[in-house]
Amino acid sequence: MSWLVQDKIYEDNKVLLKNESLFNVSNGYIGVRGNFEEGYEAGFDTIRGTYLNAFYEVEPITYGEKLYGFPDTKQKILNVIDSQTIHLYIEGEYFSLHQGEVLDFTRTLDMKEGSVTRSIHWRSPKGHEVKITIERLASFNTLELFLIRYTVEAVNFDGEIKFLSSVDGDIVNYTDETDPRTGGGHGKCYEQYDAKVVENMIQVSTTTIHSKLKATCTCHHHLNETCELNFEKHERKVTAIISTDIERSQKITLTKYNVYTDDRRHERPEEDGKELLKKVIYREFDFYLDEQIQYLKKFWKSADITIQGDEDLQQGIHYNVYQLLQSVGKDKYSNIAAKGMSGEGYEGHYFWDTEIYIFPFFLLTQPELAKKLLIYRHSILDGARNRAKEMGHERGALYPWRTINGDECSPFFPAGTAQYHINADIAYAVIQYYMITRDTEFMIHYGAEILFETARLWADIGHFHHNQFMIHSVTGPDEYTCVVDNNYYTNVMAKHNLKWAYKMYELLKDQSNHMTTIIESMELTKEEVEKWQKAYENMYLPYDKALGINPQDDTFLTKKIWEISSIPKNKFPLLLNYHPLLIYRYQICKQADTVLAHFLLEDEQGYETIEKSYHYYENITTHDSSLSFGVFSIMAAKVGEEQKAYDYFMKSARLDLDDHHGNTKHGIHTANMGGTYLGIVYGFGGLRIKEDIASLNPKKPSKWQEYAFKFIYQGRLVKVIVKENRIEILLEEGEALDIKVYEKVYTLESKLHIDLA
Amino acid sequence: MSWLVQDKIYEDNKVLLKNESLFNVSNGYIGVRGNFEEGYEAGFDTIRGTYLNAFYEVEPITYGEKLYGFPDTKQKILNVIDSQTIHLYIEGEYFSLHQGEVLDFTRTLDMKEGSVTRSIHWRSPKGHEVKITIERLASFNTLELFLIRYTVEAVNFDGEIKFLSSVDGDIVNYTDETDPRTGGGHGKCYEQYDAKVVENMIQVSTTTIHSKLKATCTCHHHLNETCELNFEKHERKVTAIISTDIERSQKITLTKYNVYTDDRRHERPEEDGKELLKKVIYREFDFYLDEQIQYLKKFWKSADITIQGDEDLQQGIHYNVYQLLQSVGKDKYSNIAAKGMSGEGYEGHYFWDTEIYIFPFFLLTQPELAKKLLIYRHSILDGARNRAKEMGHERGALYPWRTINGDECSPFFPAGTAQYHINADIAYAVIQYYMITRDTEFMIHYGAEILFETARLWADIGHFHHNQFMIHSVTGPDEYTCVVDNNYYTNVMAKHNLKWAYKMYELLKDQSNHMTTIIESMELTKEEVEKWQKAYENMYLPYDKALGINPQDDTFLTKKIWEISSIPKNKFPLLLNYHPLLIYRYQICKQADTVLAHFLLEDEQGYETIEKSYHYYENITTHDSSLSFGVFSIMAAKVGEEQKAYDYFMKSARLDLDDHHGNTKHGIHTANMGGTYLGIVYGFGGLRIKEDIASLNPKKPSKWQEYAFKFIYQGRLVKVIVKENRIEILLEEGEALDIKVYEKVYTLESKLHIDLA
Repeated sequence: MSWLVQDKIYEDNKVLLKNESLFNVSNGYIGVRGNFEEGYEAGFDTIRGTYLNAFYEVEPITYGEKLYGFPDTKQKILNVIDSQTIHLYIEGEYFSLHQGEVLDFTRTLDMKEGSVTRSIHWRSPKGHEVKITIERLASFNTLELFLIRYTVEAVNFDGEIKFLSSVDGDIVNYTDETDPRTGGGHGKCYEQYDAKVVENMIQVSTTTIHSKLKATCTCHHHLNETCELNFEKHERKVTAIISTDIERSQKITLTKYNVYTDDRRHERPEEDGKELLKKVIYREFDFYLDEQIQYLKKFWKSADITIQGDEDLQQGIHYNVYQLLQSVGKDKYSNIAAKGMSGEGYEGHYFWDTEIYIFPFFLLTQPELAKKLLIYRHSILDGARNRAKEMGHERGALYPWRTINGDECSPFFPAGTAQYHINADIAYAVIQYYMITRDTEFMIHYGAEILFETARLWADIGHFHHNQFMIHSVTGPDEYTCVVDNNYYTNVMAKHNLKWAYKMYELLKDQSNHMTTIIESMELTKEEVEKWQKAYENMYLPYDKALGINPQDDTFLTKKIWEISSIPKNKFPLLLNYHPLLIYRYQICKQADTVLAHFLLEDEQGYETIEKSYHYYENITTHDSSLSFGVFSIMAAKVGEEQKAYDYFMKSARLDLDDHHGNTKHGIHTANMGGTYLGIVYGFGGLRIKEDIASLNPKKPSKWQEYAFKFIYQGRLVKVIVKENRIEILLEEGEALDIKVYEKVYTLESKLHIDLA
Repeated sequence: MSWLVQDKIYEDNKVLLKNESLFNVSNGYIGVRGNFEEGYEAGFDTIRGTYLNAFYEVEPITYGEKLYGFPDTKQKILNVIDSQTIHLYIEGEYFSLHQGEVLDFTRTLDMKEGSVTRSIHWRSPKGHEVKITIERLASFNTLELFLIRYTVEAVNFDGEIKFLSSVDGDIVNYTDETDPRTGGGHGKCYEQYDAKVVENMIQVSTTTIHSKLKATCTCHHHLNETCELNFEKHERKVTAIISTDIERSQKITLTKYNVYTDDRRHERPEEDGKELLKKVIYREFDFYLDEQIQYLKKFWKSADITIQGDEDLQQGIHYNVYQLLQSVGKDKYSNIAAKGMSGEGYEGHYFWDTEIYIFPFFLLTQPELAKKLLIYRHSILDGARNRAKEMGHERGALYPWRTINGDECSPFFPAGTAQYHINADIAYAVIQYYMITRDTEFMIHYGAEILFETARLWADIGHFHHNQFMIHSVTGPDEYTCVVDNNYYTNVMAKHNLKWAYKMYELLKDQSNHMTTIIESMELTKEEVEKWQKAYENMYLPYDKALGINPQDDTFLTKKIWEISSIPKNKFPLLLNYHPLLIYRYQICKQADTVLAHFLLEDEQGYETIEKSYHYYENITTHDSSLSFGVFSIMAAKVGEEQKAYDYFMKSARLDLDDHHGNTKHGIHTANMGGTYLGIVYGFGGLRIKEDIASLNPKKPSKWQEYAFKFIYQGRLVKVIVKENRIEILLEEGEALDIKVYEKVYTLESKLHIDLA
């Protein structure tokens, strides 16, 4: 059952809200929350949502005190045209789970099929008994297509059934003024609406007020029996009224084909939508379901992780990996939002989460999708160059802390724009991509330019003090201290960035006309590149002799300690319960910061420093960010804290399924899901991708009988099975390669095994 | 002429705007900008304003991202009912300086009379020639009274003249979204208006939307000739229409008595206004003018400073001192706004400017007014206690960075709430007050409690690290580095605060029942007070051996230097042209910070450290704050840089009169005005008030023939005259006292002189 997620709740508002997120049906372009087609009764909260990745509105940001360079506007992902709604009338009685009698109710997400199904057995107040099956899918092959198949079986009656199925442009975004993690302001974002019926297709279009983006939903209904079809047209909405007769034991099936188009991707959203719809309606639901199955078969071939001995965990891992696939943008306009396509939390913005927590999964299992993610970053490079200028830098690019279209959206700079490390995070992903793929073409066309521009920024922001290269006034990953000097994470990641920019320049500078063009257009000179070299060779990395650890920043270790055990449980997360200044005053961390740096760049410090740092920071980390557990699990595994590694890992693996943070209703936590993957592959598996070789250092949690994962490395698909006393490594695709296991190099031809003592 | 400020400009919009501020008529309760009674023509900008000190509206603060403890609302001073407006018609022709011919125009502020007069000789388009004299005063004796005397002389005609004089409640505040130093949002703040005529008095009342405060203006017109009086009543405004005949060479005089009341000070603003008005109209304008003269005579007796050899400077000094008197709040509800009563800049908020830059002037010349300022701070102590709790402190009080009613109004905490030093600044003022007055009663009833609660906060925020008491994550006076660790200024001022809280506790703890009650209600124990002692005795004061200076904070000296000469002139002030993060990254100061600490607490460091620090910081200070020049002048004088001392002083002395910062239109710079006084008395005069004695160390700028100032010390009025080769010290009032001059102690009986080599 680890391939299914099931739930039988239909009356508990809190669970329903959470399940709206959990049972989202998405393909990286369209995302539809798991709202009931028929809606809920009055008194139920719902966040009814359909989203198109990177389809946004621009809104002004208001400040109590606006200083120079504060962004004037932000983008936010939009709730778009609702095509979920289908009301069913049985002999005139409205179908609702809150009326009559529910004899059975199951909602199932099938992660091999790529669909969500609701199966309902219901008796109406007047005694009409029906079995209803509602299936949904967002096609991975045709990204514009969202399908609903609605089947009704009359159990104990003959009579009339009627569907009122609508496509509705009159929708708003969810707002909550009191929670900084959701959107504020009013939810209304559209100024133009067009709703019509053309050739028996419903077509609704909406245009936003500020960004002037247009979205269209074109919809066709197909009933497997003859029926009467009428349309009720409103200004912003069209409802199809479909009536037919049903006999006892007969099944009536309505298929609703919804094609979404928008003018970021489609030159003529309405015409393109119509044309595409006309093509897709020649096939039935089963065809698309089969396509999903084939697509997912290929996906799981490299992405699957198996754990023997813990079914719940196995399910959690399948779920997380599946959601990453559902969330990932598949074109250059889009990326992975903090909440995927499952909700409006964090306003649909893209953060560093992508590169550091999620990208490795795609890189190791679906490198083509990983490449698309980097191409997105390249597509917003001009915006980042402009932002760097706004921020007063003479050259270079500064990636926005949070964005959709490339413009900075962060209104609170100490925990936003100040996180310059995003530049190095993106560079790190580019470098990792290169190490794994050796894709020189990519580097010439995209990667090198990113490395150069980010390196430039480090050269501009830093300076030499006593012959060491220092970086002041930035915020590291840990937002519980902001705007600090020489944040270890930032400095060491900048060093890596500068070093690889230098290397790539040396490697590629004479490689192609395109590279020459880029170098010339950037006015990049040998002298400038040598400054990068000087900077990374002399990068200051704070180290405290007395403690034997890397301090998080220059003054971190002189602050007071705040005993975490002394803080009341209801005061977490701290940022929602204490003024930031109070928090800044303590040695207390929201999440892994130095510890994360030790994971990403383990060769920069000796083992002892890494181990001591792990223990030091573990004591003062609240894990108030869902990004934290995964990293601590990995590093616990590294320093031999196997129980800890397991405990941290388990907190991350089912975070959304079990709603550990209580906010899954606003959407799933995609970065945490990536963290789960990292926890197994980098943590327990001990995988590291270095410049010369991939290495493994597998450890097995004692609760698991065995586990296995796969990864793609330089064209090979490698499977690793970790058993009680044996490691098996299989080369599933590609040519033989050298691989390091427990510090020893083996040549993997088709299979090798290592027996442990 | 140094007692007058005159201007002949009536057509240059920019100058008029500036002059609206310069020629404000205020008494610390009422403030009326120097707008023309008749208004300007279309196309002219104006900030037409009348203010009541501490009469405010509350407005929500909106944030792009609101974190815990960010203030929900702010107060802003309100433009209140306009009683300035008087339109004059001569034989039906409207008097305006933009029509007809202006034969003469002079506007004069007389600082001995306490009034502003416009003298106009005007020929109408049809050739009617008139001489007009308009005098205004805001009574220092009857704070509610604002008077206008409007005299018209017919030069070349007989005919009818008509006044349309209104009292208008329909006014809004000035807003400018693009400048953080002015108010934003819409300007509308009233929800209720009442305009009526009672017993031939006009009475207009307005009530604010959120703060629910009520202001009333009650107005009576008196003409020196028989006239026809009619009223035109509107919903929010009443206009008196006064017609009479005039003969060639005759003078007609209209006196407009305006009494302002508000329900912060007056239980029944309307009734109280009426009663008060009835009293004041029994006297003519000349009576009140004479009262002003007497009041000012007394004021100047202790406040005057004379400079021989520079008339412009002498005028600047008179102006600054006079404006301080006009600005200072004279009841417990009010203080001194950053722009005095002359404009809406900084929203009428009270800052630390009062205690550090302005308070010394009142303390040394008008100690009763100084005491009122401290009583205001005591009156908002409960609010400060609450704010401390909000900020997560277990005990103590945290004064708001900017406020009117005691609640924090600062929306940008790094340069607002983080400036915890405001606590020590207020404590410093209390301590200075005590040193000068030995007013034990005041300390028992007000001062000690302030010292105790502020000391508590330091004990709470700081902690011991390697046996030194440290204070993290605060912002010092220099807003070009924010949220730093161990800011020298903050630490040394906190030390002073803790030390005197300890001393006062020891001195007063058994002195009176009232003291006992306070100590008990505070649950203050010997143990807690001993913690204060331990904290101040071990206060960490950063010192850099290599440079021999006190670093501004823990990491300041490791930052890069930004050559000030390399910055384009149009990029100042930096904060309006660069993102704060960029600025934070440099060793660059907006204003005196460590240098200010060395002035306030000179005994904490040796002379050499002070001197080196002065030179170090001078190189990296932009003086983007008007608070800076005065302090640099004082310290330049101390370290023997006499030319520098003079140059800095001159930049501050006529800052508003010459509109050096180009923003006098938003109001005068009261703190800078206080700084001018400090520059002479503390800078050139070298006055210091220590616990045991007052000391002088006079230096004379070579451009001055001689200068003289006075100060009140422990009940004595002392006059100091500094001549070319001779210092004369006169005891003008009080008993003999010891005084230190050039490090030598003298006993001053009635007069002493010191001849210099």
